[in-house]
Amino acid sequence: MSSGEIRGLTGFRDFFPEELALRRHLFSAWRRVGARYGFTEYDGPPLEALELYTRKSGEEIVAQLYEFEDKGGRAVALRPEMTPTFARMIAARAGGLAKPVRWFSIPQLFRYERPQRGRLREHFQLNMDIVGETNPLADAEIISAGIDALRELGLGAADIVVRISDRRLIGALLDANGISAGDHISVFATLDRLEKEGEDGVRARLAESGVESEAATRLLAAIRLPLEELAAAHEGDEAIAEAACRLSTVFAHLGAAGFTDFVRFDAGLVRGLAYYTGTVFEIWDRRDELRAICGGGRYDDLLKALGGVDLPALGFGMGDVVLTELLRDRELVPAAARRVDDYIVCVSDAERPLALGIARALRDRGRRVLYDLRPRGVGRQFKAAHQAGAGRTVVIGPREAERGVAILRDMASGEEREVVLETLTRQPSGEEREVAPETLTRPPSAAPTRPPSTAAGGADAR
Amino acid sequence: MSSGEIRGLTGFRDFFPEELALRRHLFSAWRRVGARYGFTEYDGPPLEALELYTRKSGEEIVAQLYEFEDKGGRAVALRPEMTPTFARMIAARAGGLAKPVRWFSIPQLFRYERPQRGRLREHFQLNMDIVGETNPLADAEIISAGIDALRELGLGAADIVVRISDRRLIGALLDANGISAGDHISVFATLDRLEKEGEDGVRARLAESGVESEAATRLLAAIRLPLEELAAAHEGDEAIAEAACRLSTVFAHLGAAGFTDFVRFDAGLVRGLAYYTGTVFEIWDRRDELRAICGGGRYDDLLKALGGVDLPALGFGMGDVVLTELLRDRELVPAAARRVDDYIVCVSDAERPLALGIARALRDRGRRVLYDLRPRGVGRQFKAAHQAGAGRTVVIGPREAERGVAILRDMASGEEREVVLETLTRQPSGEEREVAPETLTRPPSAAPTRPPSTAAGGADAR
Repeated sequence: MSSGEIRGLTGFRDFFPEELALRRHLFSAWRRVGARYGFTEYDGPPLEALELYTRKSGEEIVAQLYEFEDKGGRAVALRPEMTPTFARMIAARAGGLAKPVRWFSIPQLFRYERPQRGRLREHFQLNMDIVGETNPLADAEIISAGIDALRELGLGAADIVVRISDRRLIGALLDANGISAGDHISVFATLDRLEKEGEDGVRARLAESGVESEAATRLLAAIRLPLEELAAAHEGDEAIAEAACRLSTVFAHLGAAGFTDFVRFDAGLVRGLAYYTGTVFEIWDRRDELRAICGGGRYDDLLKALGGVDLPALGFGMGDVVLTELLRDRELVPAAARRVDDYIVCVSDAERPLALGIARALRDRGRRVLYDLRPRGVGRQFKAAHQAGAGRTVVIGPREAERGVAILRDMASGEEREVVLETLTRQPSGEEREVAPETLTRPPSAAPTRPPSTAAGGADAR
Repeated sequence: MSSGEIRGLTGFRDFFPEELALRRHLFSAWRRVGARYGFTEYDGPPLEALELYTRKSGEEIVAQLYEFEDKGGRAVALRPEMTPTFARMIAARAGGLAKPVRWFSIPQLFRYERPQRGRLREHFQLNMDIVGETNPLADAEIISAGIDALRELGLGAADIVVRISDRRLIGALLDANGISAGDHISVFATLDRLEKEGEDGVRARLAESGVESEAATRLLAAIRLPLEELAAAHEGDEAIAEAACRLSTVFAHLGAAGFTDFVRFDAGLVRGLAYYTGTVFEIWDRRDELRAICGGGRYDDLLKALGGVDLPALGFGMGDVVLTELLRDRELVPAAARRVDDYIVCVSDAERPLALGIARALRDRGRRVLYDLRPRGVGRQFKAAHQAGAGRTVVIGPREAERGVAILRDMASGEEREVVLETLTRQPSGEEREVAPETLTRPPSAAPTRPPSTAAGGADAR
C-alpha cells in the first residue's frame, strides 16, 4: 500500500460541481429538443461484447478500444460509439416497434487515443436516430433536430453551419470519372482529408489509388460547385441527376422549416466512416476554429449487418467536448443559478428542534433549505447564509419561539417580517401567514408552534 | 466475421424507452431532494486507476472488479463504488471548498459477480456525502436526505424503515465483553451475518474467532435491546454511555424533523465494510422481502487514507435495482406521460412546406410536434396521431392553405376550430388566434401565410 496521491487517468474528466452544472445544461437542452421532435430516450450498457464493434469496423478498431477479457473469459470493450448498441437493441424489438422509430441517447463513449493536448479518452455524445424511413423528409427532420440541439443552447446561424452532401451523389460523380465502385470507400476516405491535407495532398493520394490526373482534376473541380451547377455540368448523367434532385428536396424541406441560413451544400463532405449510404452532414463552427461539433448521415444497410434487421436508418452524434469549447468561446455558458432558498438561523441551540421541523416542512414544499450543522453564533450563521447565496433567512430565537413566530429576512432587500411558526411547519403547500395582532397576543402555551414531532429521541429510538 | 445475433453481456441492462423513463423518474426525484438539502452534483470517470480501489479494500476486491491493463500498461478498473473517486476529488480541491461540503452523484457502478438470478453486474447509485462535520446534526441530516430520496418517490413509513446504529457503541460493547480492539472488524463482519445465518451460525463463527460462549451470549442478548435499556444494562461503562448519548441525539434530531416513524435503533446493524467509524444505517423495505435499499454511515478516517486530506465525512449509497423492484411492487411506477402535443396532418403534399414551417414554429415554442415523414392519406395520418397519443392535430389542406388558415382538432373532445396560419408560424410565444370574419374573407394572395422560408432548396443549397 503506497501512500502517495492517486490521480485520475489521463484523458478522463472529473466533473466538479461547476463542470457538472454545464454538462447538465447541455443534457437538459438536448432532452428538451429530443422531446419536441418526438424522440424517446434509451440507453445501453457502457460495456459490450468486443465482437459488436469488430463486426462493423473490422479488427483495426481494436487498437482504439478499451478492450479486455472479463473474468468469464469473454472479450469485451467499453463502447466507443453508440450505433452498434442501438442496432442491437432495435433488432431485439424490431417487430414490436412502431415505425419510424425515433430514439435518442446521451451515452458516455470511450476511445484509447495517444495522449495529446486537448484529446480526451471519453466524451458524452447525443445520438439521435430515425429507423424505418427512406423519404428525404426524414433526412431533413434529423438535420433540423441537430440544428435545434445547438439553437437550444443559444447558437445561431452566425455561429454554426451544417455542411451537407450525399454519398450517392459523390458515388455517381466517381463513377462519372471512371473510378470503379470497389474503390469508392477508399476515395471517400481520401476526399475526407481535403480540409486537412489540401488539394495537393489529396491529388497525391488519388494518384496512389490509381486515379488518373485528369480525372482527379475534374473531380476536385466538381466538388467545389454548387448543387445545381454540379448537376448541370453532368447533364445526361441520370445517377447524378437523381442524387442531386433528392438532395435538393432535403434542402427544400430545410428551407421550408426556416433553416436556410444554417445549411450549405458541400460535395467535398463525405465523412470518413464506411457505412454511410446516402445523405451525410457535419456541423461546424463558422469560424472553423474547432473540430466538427456533430456528424451523421443515412446508413440504410448497417442495421442488417449489425443487428440482422433490414431497416433503413439515419442519425447523428453530437459530442460534448467541442461544443463546450464553443459555448465558452461565445460566452453562452449560463451563470450559476441560486442554489439555496432558505437559510435557517437559530439564536440559541434550544431552537434546534423547531429549526429541524421548519426545514423538513419547507423542503417538503420543494424549497432548498440549509442550516448550520453545529451550533454557531448568529453573525456567523448570517455570514454562511450570505455565502451560500440564500434568498432569505428564517430566524428563530427564544423570544420568537415563545411567541410562536419566526422572522423572515429577505437577503437582498434586508426587509424583515414576522410569520406564525405553524404556517411554516404545518401547511405543506401554503404561503407563510403574516402575524396578525391576535396571534401576537396569544399565550405561548396555547400556540401550536411545534413541528410534527419534537419528542426526545430516546423514546423513539427502538 | 460471424453473422449470428450479438447479445448484450450477462448482468448488463438495456434501457429501452420505458425502462429509461423509470430511471429518469428516479434520477429526477433524487436530484430534487439533493437540491432541497443544498447538495450539488458532481461526477467522476467510470474508469479509474486500480490502485484507487486496492488501497482501501485490499487485494481481495480485485476478484470482484472489472479490471484490466490499458494500452499504456496501466492497471485500471471500472468503478465498483463512488467513495474512492469522491475522496480523490475532495482531496484535489480540499483547500478551496467551503465546509461542510455537500455533494451528490448518480454514478453507474460495476462489479463482476458470479452469474446469479437477479444479480446484476452494473447498477446506478445515488451517493450523498457530507464532508467536514463531526456534529450529530450532520448524521441526522444525511439520514433525513436518504429518507426523503425515497419519500419523493412515494414511499412512506409503512413501506420503509431505517435501521440505525453506531460503530462506536457496538465497539464499546465488544470491549465490555472482553473482545480486543484488533478483533472488532472481524466480529463486525460476523454480526453483519446475523440476519442471514441466524444466532447459531453467528455463535459458531464467534467461537471460531475465540469469543467465549458466555461473552457471545451476553453480546447477542445486548444487541437485541432498545437503546436506553442497552445503556442502562451497562451503567458505569463510560464509552457505552457516551456512544448511546450521541446516538440518542441523532434520534432526537430525526424526531424533531418528523422522521420518528421511519427510524429504528438496531445494535445488530454493523454493516460489512471495514471503514465506518461511527453512525451506520441501512434502509430496508418493511416487509423484509428485498435486500437493503440504502446503506451508509460515518467514515471519518477514510478521506485521509484515500485522498490524503484529514476530514471527517459521512454519506450513503442508494442503488436503483432493489428500489425499482420495490416501486413496482408498491405500484409506484408512474404511468407513461403524453409524449406528443401536436400532430400535423397534410391533406396533400402541396401543404408540406407550410407544415414544416408550422412544425418549426411550434417546436420553437417548446411544443412536441410530429408529422408523417412520407406522404400518406389523411385517415392514416389521423390514425398515426391517435397512436402517438397526440393532444391535438393541426390540419391543412389546399382550401385551408388558400384561405391562410389551419384547423386545430382536439383529439380528446373532437372539437375543431380554425386559426390563422400566421399565428401558428410567426409568433414564437403567442397563442393561436381564432379566425375572425375579416380574415376569412381576405384574398389568399394577400395572406402572409407562408412559413419563414419556402424557397426551393436549389437556390439555398450552396
